[in-house]
Amino acid sequence: MTKVLNTADSFTDDAVDGLVSIYPHYLEKTYGGVVSSRSTRPGKVAVVIGGGSGHYPAFAGWVGPGLADGAVVGNIFASPSTQQIYAVAKAVDDGAGVFMSYGNYAGDVLNFNLAEEQLGEEDIRAVSVPVTDDVSSAKLEERAKRRGVAGDLMVFKIAGAAAERGDDLDGVIAAAKKVNDATYSFGVAFAGCTLPGAEQPLFTVPEGQMGVGLGVHGEPGVAEVPLEPAADLAKRLVDRLLEERPEGSSGRVAALLNGLGGTKYEELFVLWNDVRKLLEGAGLTIVAPEVGELITSLDMAGVSLTLTWLDDELEELWLAPADTPAFRRGAAPEVRTVHRGISEAAQQEFGEASSDSRELAGELLATLEVVATLLHDKESELGDLDAIAGDGDHGRGMTKGCDAALAAARAAVDGGAGLSSTLSAAGVAWADKAGGTSGALWGNGLRQAATALDDESRPGAEQGVAAVQAALDLVTTFGKAQRHDKTLLDALIPFGESLQQSVGEGRSFAEAWSSAAEVATTEAQATADLAPKIGRARVLSDRSQGHPDPGAISLAMIVTAVGERLG
Amino acid sequence: MTKVLNTADSFTDDAVDGLVSIYPHYLEKTYGGVVSSRSTRPGKVAVVIGGGSGHYPAFAGWVGPGLADGAVVGNIFASPSTQQIYAVAKAVDDGAGVFMSYGNYAGDVLNFNLAEEQLGEEDIRAVSVPVTDDVSSAKLEERAKRRGVAGDLMVFKIAGAAAERGDDLDGVIAAAKKVNDATYSFGVAFAGCTLPGAEQPLFTVPEGQMGVGLGVHGEPGVAEVPLEPAADLAKRLVDRLLEERPEGSSGRVAALLNGLGGTKYEELFVLWNDVRKLLEGAGLTIVAPEVGELITSLDMAGVSLTLTWLDDELEELWLAPADTPAFRRGAAPEVRTVHRGISEAAQQEFGEASSDSRELAGELLATLEVVATLLHDKESELGDLDAIAGDGDHGRGMTKGCDAALAAARAAVDGGAGLSSTLSAAGVAWADKAGGTSGALWGNGLRQAATALDDESRPGAEQGVAAVQAALDLVTTFGKAQRHDKTLLDALIPFGESLQQSVGEGRSFAEAWSSAAEVATTEAQATADLAPKIGRARVLSDRSQGHPDPGAISLAMIVTAVGERLG
Repeated sequence: MTKVLNTADSFTDDAVDGLVSIYPHYLEKTYGGVVSSRSTRPGKVAVVIGGGSGHYPAFAGWVGPGLADGAVVGNIFASPSTQQIYAVAKAVDDGAGVFMSYGNYAGDVLNFNLAEEQLGEEDIRAVSVPVTDDVSSAKLEERAKRRGVAGDLMVFKIAGAAAERGDDLDGVIAAAKKVNDATYSFGVAFAGCTLPGAEQPLFTVPEGQMGVGLGVHGEPGVAEVPLEPAADLAKRLVDRLLEERPEGSSGRVAALLNGLGGTKYEELFVLWNDVRKLLEGAGLTIVAPEVGELITSLDMAGVSLTLTWLDDELEELWLAPADTPAFRRGAAPEVRTVHRGISEAAQQEFGEASSDSRELAGELLATLEVVATLLHDKESELGDLDAIAGDGDHGRGMTKGCDAALAAARAAVDGGAGLSSTLSAAGVAWADKAGGTSGALWGNGLRQAATALDDESRPGAEQGVAAVQAALDLVTTFGKAQRHDKTLLDALIPFGESLQQSVGEGRSFAEAWSSAAEVATTEAQATADLAPKIGRARVLSDRSQGHPDPGAISLAMIVTAVGERLG
Repeated sequence: MTKVLNTADSFTDDAVDGLVSIYPHYLEKTYGGVVSSRSTRPGKVAVVIGGGSGHYPAFAGWVGPGLADGAVVGNIFASPSTQQIYAVAKAVDDGAGVFMSYGNYAGDVLNFNLAEEQLGEEDIRAVSVPVTDDVSSAKLEERAKRRGVAGDLMVFKIAGAAAERGDDLDGVIAAAKKVNDATYSFGVAFAGCTLPGAEQPLFTVPEGQMGVGLGVHGEPGVAEVPLEPAADLAKRLVDRLLEERPEGSSGRVAALLNGLGGTKYEELFVLWNDVRKLLEGAGLTIVAPEVGELITSLDMAGVSLTLTWLDDELEELWLAPADTPAFRRGAAPEVRTVHRGISEAAQQEFGEASSDSRELAGELLATLEVVATLLHDKESELGDLDAIAGDGDHGRGMTKGCDAALAAARAAVDGGAGLSSTLSAAGVAWADKAGGTSGALWGNGLRQAATALDDESRPGAEQGVAAVQAALDLVTTFGKAQRHDKTLLDALIPFGESLQQSVGEGRSFAEAWSSAAEVATTEAQATADLAPKIGRARVLSDRSQGHPDPGAISLAMIVTAVGERLG
């Protein structure tokens, strides 16, 4: 359990401050994460890695020559925001393009894709390759749906080495895709982890059992089996990975035996001793194995084994020197520190606004206050609901996002902004601070809604419908989900349809909204009957069966509260 | 809790095998531990570190250029045996003498001292400096009684650097003493650790509390206080260490914030961020801080802060390059691997024995079988008793020792050995395999008893008394304890006195033994009324009050069982 913290909200920031102060010769803090404080070869492709925090040394511990130029640091177990990714990429770009990589989770995919788009608008070519190594999370035929777990290290290390040796962006992408295709991980969990500030672990493993096919964000395993001796556990891990040995492989493998945090070094060495014998017994040659805590999940107890099937190129890149706080190979280069300077999120400026629109902006601010209070009240309820099948961060993410939106809206209103600008500022702040999938969708959804409004007029009901539709379109496009996939769309789509229909029938906007909110509530509850489908790589089992989707529930709560204010 | 193992007995050996297979370019396994597989400068003072296992990277992870040449690996939380220390020192000695260092615990002191003596007999000069950095374990005026905790790293690193730069043995000793005098540690525990194979942790910390002044072998803290924010915890640690800031210190400090195993990196970074501010606020300059899991205690949760007050020499040595599996600083030297070869424990040869004496050796073997069965039955009971104030390893240590003694006695009897040789072989094996204080005392005590016997005659009662007295003398001399110090001497001394008196009164040896065993049992129970005194640096609180000493209890059990066979 996490015992050392000031506040749960400041945990990630405090940890980054501490880390950077220990390794000033490696790291510099920047808005969104950390960047290398070492000089790099001019014209090198920049390598950006990232994800949620709680996994140290992943990701901030791997910044340095031969590996990454920057790491984006999200909140605990939550995707970093689009703005964070954009900022870190921008800080390290040297004109040769930015290669980005991260574990394949819906929130990370969404935010990295949005950041690529944003960088592209500034003519910075940024391309990401998500890591998909977890054999438990999807069948081999659906490789692209697999989660990224400890194989992250293999992909990042090899992509970093490709950039270091002088490959251009296409070359780095090709190396990353090749190593990702060659990388397979399988793990077991002995005990769950507890989020900073939480009292209970995200999941528990029954006495005498272990969870097979764990995730690294507190996701329970896909099955439970009795504990077994190290030699049997080694065989379980090795056998499963050898099932997917690629045809024509050279028989040379890079291996990583990873401890999740609560499983200690000596235990890992005991297990490795058996793993090694089995791999050698299968005729394989193990190249530079790594055994240790490389991708942790707070204090979760468990292990995973990763194999990367090497060819000559991958072996050369795997063995190439690297020098970072937590991963070092070969001779350390001479240290020369450069200072990129700490950037901050860009300040927004607001245009002229009519007094009508400023009054509406004030209304919006008051509404956000109501919503923020509601979300604080419901934070643990939403978190518990999310923990059934996910990582339990939904309540915290929504609260953080809404608090940030409220603060941004207040600053906008104080600065004389109108309705559209205020809503847009609120959306940007929400996406930036909440992290995760829902944060990105809510924040960018609100920002998109603002495009249907302006800072001048008092919008009519039609314009209100258009704003909701704009948000809905964004969420559908970037959320990569459809109705009945057990996401917030199951409440949002019927909400939008009902609102449009009622307004079309001539009812007042407030009336239409309230009745649409009732529809959303009913539909959100009905998600309890659905099994999760696509776009939710984290959800592996049907543990959520019988429970409604937390994203749909929170949406229904919010539109209901807004309806009460409108009416 | 330890979940990955084959058997509890094979845990340490399996872990060393695994470790060495990961780092063949650093480490080679030898009898008793690991030695460096790198070439060293001819004529360099050899540096040997060691202690129990369960603390990785301490100690085997710190073998390599600039640090140690060999590490002795005891069982979990138990001192290595004299034979192990001797063997590792012998493997790395290059003629310039051997510097040895370890944390200050009774068992380690005993075994390292015995090993020094044994090496001295072969004209190998070996000198050890125990580390005494734990401010919670004794007052500053009793500095030599303090335990060694995370400060081990500072002392080992600086002594290793002194040897590497070419200091002779006296120079290395002087540097080690200087850094030890300048090193202070203080820590807190959040949760206890569980020995491999055990079901329950060695201690627990009540919900919402933390133990202040933890040990690294599952010893609970000396006091319990409520959990507090990281900033307050930082202040608690820093304030306590600044109380002992040496007069005239330069204001430059090396710092180590150590995680015990269950407290994760991000938590350490959060705490370091506050510690750093407080140290800087006190006007100190922090030199090359280390923050991480350096001296663990299996999966125990907790942290400790170590400060070393630097002068120019210590700072130079602290910053000198080092290259080991788990601690690396500066440029890595080119790797050249040497092979020292794996040594085994020396085989014993037995002289001629009379048939009478061989018959008695057979009796001894049968008696050891009875004692071994008894100890297996009582293993967890003795462990529980030991866990009240100590590290809970007494039952396991006694069982391991006796099993080894039994196997050695069987081999001796099969080889035609007489009574004295068989008892001596049993004693050597007991000391070697049991580890810890009680293992060294029991094993060396039996070996000493054998010197009062021979392989020819059938000993009379007087000779039996002399054998017990010989064992008692050794235990008193090396155990550095007296009666009423709450050790096995509280049963052994009255046992010896009673035996001598009864034999003097003309009773049969069997009768005298049985009545002495009754005395031993009564006296062992009476240790419940004693508070621990000296020679037991591990025991800090009076938690053992009201409970008898496990060493006295096991002695009483064994002499009672032996008495039943004699009678």
